[in-house]
Amino acid sequence: MKKVLFATTALVMTAGVAAAEVTLSGDGRMGVVYDGNDFDFTSRARVTFSLSGETDGGLAFGGAFRVDHANSNNGGNGNVYISGAFGKITMGDIDSGAESAVGDLPGVGLTGLNDLNEFAYPGSAGEAANNPGLLYSYAGDNFNVYLSAYDGHNTGFAAPAGVDANAISLGGNYTFNNFTVAAGYTALDYDVAAMNDAKIMAIAGIATFGDVKVTAAYAKADDLQIDLQAAYDAFGTLSGLPAQLVNSDAKQYGIGAETTFGATSVSAFYRKVKAEDLAAGSTAEIEADYYGIGASYDLGGGASLQGGVVKWDHAYDNGAVPAVSKSDIIADFGISFSF
Amino acid sequence: MKKVLFATTALVMTAGVAAAEVTLSGDGRMGVVYDGNDFDFTSRARVTFSLSGETDGGLAFGGAFRVDHANSNNGGNGNVYISGAFGKITMGDIDSGAESAVGDLPGVGLTGLNDLNEFAYPGSAGEAANNPGLLYSYAGDNFNVYLSAYDGHNTGFAAPAGVDANAISLGGNYTFNNFTVAAGYTALDYDVAAMNDAKIMAIAGIATFGDVKVTAAYAKADDLQIDLQAAYDAFGTLSGLPAQLVNSDAKQYGIGAETTFGATSVSAFYRKVKAEDLAAGSTAEIEADYYGIGASYDLGGGASLQGGVVKWDHAYDNGAVPAVSKSDIIADFGISFSF
Amino acid sequence: MKKVLFATTALVMTAGVAAAEVTLSGDGRMGVVYDGNDFDFTSRARVTFSLSGETDGGLAFGGAFRVDHANSNNGGNGNVYISGAFGKITMGDIDSGAESAVGDLPGVGLTGLNDLNEFAYPGSAGEAANNPGLLYSYAGDNFNVYLSAYDGHNTGFAAPAGVDANAISLGGNYTFNNFTVAAGYTALDYDVAAMNDAKIMAIAGIATFGDVKVTAAYAKADDLQIDLQAAYDAFGTLSGLPAQLVNSDAKQYGIGAETTFGATSVSAFYRKVKAEDLAAGSTAEIEADYYGIGASYDLGGGASLQGGVVKWDHAYDNGAVPAVSKSDIIADFGISFSF
Repeated sequence: MKKVLFATTALVMTAGVAAAEVTLSGDGRMGVVYDGNDFDFTSRARVTFSLSGETDGGLAFGGAFRVDHANSNNGGNGNVYISGAFGKITMGDIDSGAESAVGDLPGVGLTGLNDLNEFAYPGSAGEAANNPGLLYSYAGDNFNVYLSAYDGHNTGFAAPAGVDANAISLGGNYTFNNFTVAAGYTALDYDVAAMNDAKIMAIAGIATFGDVKVTAAYAKADDLQIDLQAAYDAFGTLSGLPAQLVNSDAKQYGIGAETTFGATSVSAFYRKVKAEDLAAGSTAEIEADYYGIGASYDLGGGASLQGGVVKWDHAYDNGAVPAVSKSDIIADFGISFSF
Repeated sequence: MKKVLFATTALVMTAGVAAAEVTLSGDGRMGVVYDGNDFDFTSRARVTFSLSGETDGGLAFGGAFRVDHANSNNGGNGNVYISGAFGKITMGDIDSGAESAVGDLPGVGLTGLNDLNEFAYPGSAGEAANNPGLLYSYAGDNFNVYLSAYDGHNTGFAAPAGVDANAISLGGNYTFNNFTVAAGYTALDYDVAAMNDAKIMAIAGIATFGDVKVTAAYAKADDLQIDLQAAYDAFGTLSGLPAQLVNSDAKQYGIGAETTFGATSVSAFYRKVKAEDLAAGSTAEIEADYYGIGASYDLGGGASLQGGVVKWDHAYDNGAVPAVSKSDIIADFGISFSF
Repeated sequence: MKKVLFATTALVMTAGVAAAEVTLSGDGRMGVVYDGNDFDFTSRARVTFSLSGETDGGLAFGGAFRVDHANSNNGGNGNVYISGAFGKITMGDIDSGAESAVGDLPGVGLTGLNDLNEFAYPGSAGEAANNPGLLYSYAGDNFNVYLSAYDGHNTGFAAPAGVDANAISLGGNYTFNNFTVAAGYTALDYDVAAMNDAKIMAIAGIATFGDVKVTAAYAKADDLQIDLQAAYDAFGTLSGLPAQLVNSDAKQYGIGAETTFGATSVSAFYRKVKAEDLAAGSTAEIEADYYGIGASYDLGGGASLQGGVVKWDHAYDNGAVPAVSKSDIIADFGISFSF
């Protein structure tokens, strides 16, 4: 079989015209995951296609998406963009304006370990293949502004089945000296008339002390519809849970740190989620605590050893029945590749 | 992450042997679609793989298929071919002989707006992933001849569920001065003994007047089985419709025009479909009218602004109950990319 | 549309650093398949992504997976690896240690004709997208050693639905003069307590006489759980079969030969499978015989004509009811491409 071989450092000659380009990059991983019960193997190989071009008027445009061997269908993260002096418009699988500005706590592990470091901002798009979101972003010298819109079909969040929401989300961040402050606001307009609009506010501060970067974030949601099954089932059902919190007020906050010394990087986070049901007569309340720590050792050439451990605690209390809680530890370890 | 970067105009040196090649190209779009009720976002990024080689005896062979971020599974349009002095044989997702020769009315819009400009010739293949069709084509100086075969499993058309058909389709076109005339004939052999074979005849004429190209086409189908639900549901159910027209005779005709002045291209079409049920005692009849207009403005570098509007009218009348009809307008607008 | 064109023999210049690479290769086929009843078209185009890199310490790592137009989801054969002086560790879709060492009989035909030449070793992984296996291999001067582990979810074999198994598999082969001998052993630990562990032993010998290569192989399985429906339905149900053989002892053996003269290659195999139910009081027994012959003619440039014929015989006898049997012939012919 003949093969087409391209080295990543290949010299290619362009004819001086505005060149439309297809860029290939890849990543992979191999290792084990401990899911609280036993160890399973994990492996993955992926290629990302990045497309880019430039109009005669100097606007940049392009797109990107991934294919992988495990499931090309959930390739996710596909998007297209156009950019110029006015900023950049991205459509497809996007982060919301708030998420783009505020970000998440540092992640741990080879596989992300269920991404429990992420604030799971409503208003981001990308779950549904044919349901793109739109993100406008503008980058100044020391600030960024983001505005996103998402036209429903699902909320990209743990809303009850059959409930859709349109989302508008605004965010910004500002960097001075070693500090970055960020804030975001998201409004969800549910398509069920009896449901109030959900409002989510998020703030974060990032400070860099030498080689150490510390992130603290806080988010508060009013009138958020939460499907508890969808929110919790991914990594361990808490028996005795009601199916849904109606008109819940939810808070989450966390702190994380990450540092690199030589070939070694270490990151850790703590995150707490608390939501109470505001339905008349209900005192139902859920709490979740997540503790994570991970490390990475760079082997050079794009390979690194990576591992992480996360402890999660879930609790539910409605006053009437005995409170229930569940906790477990998940972990992974292996090699991560980039090409 | 290291990246593999290739410019589209890269100079590559071949060693003089018959070279097997993999060619990458891409396209994308971002915009909004109005579906008759409200506006939705639309975006897409795709890459097409084109494979080509040459045997020692000088036959060319190759293939092509697409992957995209929305759904790699419906990548469609995958095929393989071999060609030489004898012509070209293509297998996979093919247009029928008649469709290859006669073509469609000019399309409009960023997303194709349900492709209502297309005659939906039976006998083309490509819907079913594992059900390839075969197309033989021969290109002379000013004529083309096409012959296709499709071995059933589904008709690639709106046949009733569970009814398969084999299809043979023949077509040709001839160009003289500014005129092209085309004709095609397709026979569908249903696997239900009680059903007559369907016969579809299609003709078209294309005339170029300066920068304006005008297309007129007519097709007539005898004994065609039509699943009305499948045919109509994609863009708006007409309530009161029977599930199926048995042994219907269907006509469709239309006219379209397209022109380019400077960076602007404009296209428009009108298409009418009329089918009557020939079952004993039935006077059922459906009619559809489609009006479309679209425009494109080339931004250079592979990007263009594109938009379109289509009005559709559906009507059903069986004499016994009051006639029902429904109509709506769909539209889209945005930016189209090619890489 | 601008295109990115790369010739397979392109000269590319690397900057001398350890290069992470993305390699593209492709293959395709077009032809017809006779499934025992009628002829169907078959066509396919695929691209394989091969990823490779090297750590600063000289370990090689990489991965590979395929995408194709028919169904990107079953892209299969995706894996990642890391290798060095210690050998090679591969994760993802792997062959078991026994299969890697012992191999299969030579295959026939354009499409593989249901791969009836393969011994279907339990313990290989790859069917389930998110269920990778691990294979360690070490290649000496004239020997290879393989050890694989597979952490269940399904057995990668025709086990009854809902029955998972962990698999450990060990194999090795040794070459001297024109002979290769190979042996493998696999243990399946079912997750149903009442089921004994299955033990599968396989041996093979390969001899090369001039241009002719002859392979003989034998495998014996004790206490293997076999879902007869899953095992047989793919190519012709044998009516009257029980749903399952419990604690069956299964034997399979076969012989194959392949040779190349000029541009022509010919291969043939015979394979027999026999399994008896060891449940108390049962005398149920299945037998299968497979005869295959195929040929390939190289057209140069990566294209070759290929075709094959396989006759299969299935029989079932439980002593109580009359024995049932079924047999048919399947065949294919067409052109195979590689790029």
